[in-house]
Amino acid sequence: MQSYSIKTLLEKGKEVALQEVSIHGWVRSFRSNRFIALNDGSCLKTIQVVVDFDKFDEELIQQITTAASLQVVGEVVESQGKGQEIEIVAKDIKVLGVAASEEVQGTILQPKAHSLEKLREQAHLRFRTNLFGAVMRVRNALMFAIHQYFNELDFVYINTPIITGSDAEGAGEMFHVTNFDLDNLPRTEDGKVDYSQDFFGKATNLTVSGQLEGEAAAMGLGKIYTFGPTFRAENSNTSRHLAEFWMIEPEMAFYNLDQNMDLAEDFLKYVIQYAKDKCPDDLAFLAERYAKEQSQKPADERSELGLMDRLDYVLNNRFIRLSYTEAIDILKNSKPNKKGKFKYPVDGWGVDLQSEHERYLVEKHFKTPVILFDYPQEIKAFYMRLNEDGKTVRAMDVLFPGIGEIIGGSQREERLDVLDERIKQFGIDQEEIWWYRDTRRFGTVPHSGFGLGLERLVLFVTGMGNIRDVIPFPRTPNNAEF
Amino acid sequence: MQSYSIKTLLEKGKEVALQEVSIHGWVRSFRSNRFIALNDGSCLKTIQVVVDFDKFDEELIQQITTAASLQVVGEVVESQGKGQEIEIVAKDIKVLGVAASEEVQGTILQPKAHSLEKLREQAHLRFRTNLFGAVMRVRNALMFAIHQYFNELDFVYINTPIITGSDAEGAGEMFHVTNFDLDNLPRTEDGKVDYSQDFFGKATNLTVSGQLEGEAAAMGLGKIYTFGPTFRAENSNTSRHLAEFWMIEPEMAFYNLDQNMDLAEDFLKYVIQYAKDKCPDDLAFLAERYAKEQSQKPADERSELGLMDRLDYVLNNRFIRLSYTEAIDILKNSKPNKKGKFKYPVDGWGVDLQSEHERYLVEKHFKTPVILFDYPQEIKAFYMRLNEDGKTVRAMDVLFPGIGEIIGGSQREERLDVLDERIKQFGIDQEEIWWYRDTRRFGTVPHSGFGLGLERLVLFVTGMGNIRDVIPFPRTPNNAEF
Repeated sequence: MQSYSIKTLLEKGKEVALQEVSIHGWVRSFRSNRFIALNDGSCLKTIQVVVDFDKFDEELIQQITTAASLQVVGEVVESQGKGQEIEIVAKDIKVLGVAASEEVQGTILQPKAHSLEKLREQAHLRFRTNLFGAVMRVRNALMFAIHQYFNELDFVYINTPIITGSDAEGAGEMFHVTNFDLDNLPRTEDGKVDYSQDFFGKATNLTVSGQLEGEAAAMGLGKIYTFGPTFRAENSNTSRHLAEFWMIEPEMAFYNLDQNMDLAEDFLKYVIQYAKDKCPDDLAFLAERYAKEQSQKPADERSELGLMDRLDYVLNNRFIRLSYTEAIDILKNSKPNKKGKFKYPVDGWGVDLQSEHERYLVEKHFKTPVILFDYPQEIKAFYMRLNEDGKTVRAMDVLFPGIGEIIGGSQREERLDVLDERIKQFGIDQEEIWWYRDTRRFGTVPHSGFGLGLERLVLFVTGMGNIRDVIPFPRTPNNAEF
Repeated sequence: MQSYSIKTLLEKGKEVALQEVSIHGWVRSFRSNRFIALNDGSCLKTIQVVVDFDKFDEELIQQITTAASLQVVGEVVESQGKGQEIEIVAKDIKVLGVAASEEVQGTILQPKAHSLEKLREQAHLRFRTNLFGAVMRVRNALMFAIHQYFNELDFVYINTPIITGSDAEGAGEMFHVTNFDLDNLPRTEDGKVDYSQDFFGKATNLTVSGQLEGEAAAMGLGKIYTFGPTFRAENSNTSRHLAEFWMIEPEMAFYNLDQNMDLAEDFLKYVIQYAKDKCPDDLAFLAERYAKEQSQKPADERSELGLMDRLDYVLNNRFIRLSYTEAIDILKNSKPNKKGKFKYPVDGWGVDLQSEHERYLVEKHFKTPVILFDYPQEIKAFYMRLNEDGKTVRAMDVLFPGIGEIIGGSQREERLDVLDERIKQFGIDQEEIWWYRDTRRFGTVPHSGFGLGLERLVLFVTGMGNIRDVIPFPRTPNNAEF
């Protein structure tokens, strides 16, 4: 007898009618002591198991409660009900694990609406909910698409270090990593902590970006990407920040900024299309949730686009490319700026753009995704390539509707003399990044890359509002549960 | 004009003869001021660029030195030399980045044999060497194969937390993560470090395994796998240990130990076959290096198998499955044991097996990979399922030639009462893993999983001897360079 996942069984549908099959799963509901909705996590849908009350022990029937786990052997038959092609007439049911109703009561397994906060508090159980299951399957599809995309283009996946002795990237506050017993710190003669006695013989931190190491790899392997966890020790308790999140950072030797923009656009379209193709049920479910959530907002805060429209907005439009300078002109002369509607008025060249400005460009002015490039050097990182004008760098930000910046990247400064000047300007210790400078000493080449925060992408594709709801076990200030 | 990677160009071969193409890369050698061997990292091979001395400036020619980077436009022609189908007759050469010969001298970019130690010291440059390039491309192929394998089987890729507040898994010493200024630690009234003021409001560590969280995910999503960095703060300066390494941990609801073994075997064969298919040149190069290394060893330390034979040994044999108890019998009665050749004599049931014992079983006795199962409970972890005999658990270790244990796994204890007994035995705080216990309270199911250290697998497939040579930037005691 064949054992099937519920996903496979439903895909086969009538093809397996009249066959005896074995399935496993958890009870979502048991209606009229006759219809079990069984789910095994392989897909959003449940399969209906029909139980002939007379054929089973009373005791067994009583154990079939919400959240209990079952093994069911039965015959596949065409379904009479609507919304399902097949169902299973149970011949044998084995309760693998019971779930006492009074204990299920206090949990999110109870079949009723639960707040997202409550789901988070029971993050170990939320994998069993429709909502979080759908989010995880979409996240999974996006992650696989990312690997497949780069693999098809002959990029080499590189694991850059998580524990780092350097903090040159300067992307944010870092967590310290130590093997010391904090109650018993070794000290140097002048009373300072003696890091020479720590595990790595020096102070170490958790990485904020693998880019610099990724550049070194690209200088030999040509095209690489990193995909791993990165960290920020920033006390930001917002719906957009995590202390631990996953980042993708491709880096390409011999790519200039235009090629970098081409790649970023192609990449985003590929992975979003992949998720659309692979997760139609999950996305339909999430789109419904999104629509409902939007309908409960005040009219002026509502998104104009539904979830699927938003995905198509990205897929079907060529991204507009616009220099920072042009963007400032548009924003300065825009209606909301003139009418004082921006929280941060745009009054001149050189200011950093806020989310409200980015969203105006994307959602109101162009009505397409936008790639801004050539930013003032003062507001960007030291490794970005200086333009001939001496005041802008070859940075780029990809801006999406509803979410603002989804990708940040640049062409890198490959000229050692210019790089050294910038290193000095930024007050970085040249000695500390001796190896990064080395990559410019031996056959330096033009190269470019970008970074994408995975969870931002998952937020965009799933329509979820809080970044804590798109990662299995979120890490935020005062929260490292599980 | 078409721009090609060297890999693609060589694959196309004569198909593109007489076409004008553009390529980029780094000079590996420049022979007789006429033949440039150019490599761009896309593959092991170089392409030969033929330079007509008379057509280029003396100054330009002088800049074409080892490690310099070039853009070359030229015509593809069929090659006269052996070992290459095509070459390029240069029409235009642009030196993108020079490499001063006197500076290259001290580096591993100089075209001569360098020790592996020296490559490690210049880890930022070793991506440009044939050896490390080959290792990275094979590592990349294995990583993609891992994702593709699980994706084809509908596993959901789950990112378990890196920073954890729990240390229940007990797999080893942990690194501490803190946001404190160590020179200025906040203290409680009784003088202890006040972790309630740390970033997460409690003491946190770097994860040693994502298994427990992975189990929670599998209890909802069915089949999941993790793939991420894990950490050990162990002062082991050996060729087999890293403080930071990448681990793959699949976890399957409704799988018993037999199914777990089936999956592990199928999985290993799949990913090794994939690497063989995708990286023939790199593996041939590595096999040659391996053979040379072996030939320099004393006869009794030499491997009987060449690198490719070793891969076929895994691919072409059904893995023998053997209980720990049977293994002890075989080992007790084995020649090396009777003749006192084992460093650790096998004298009775209950002892942990050493690498010499594992290798005897695999390499001498069975001459196939071996899966040992049903180990004494005392030498395995608390979460493994207790057998009816009350003294063994449903653990399994997959043993490979030359390397010993490559995978460790088990069926998990799904019965809450038995689990609680084991938790008590192991002195683990029940409160701390309340959420793990919860997964057994609500529809518990039989489930299984295993762990594979990525770098161990890369060692096996590449034939490299030191784990520091198969990860971009190794982290070991007193070493967090780059």
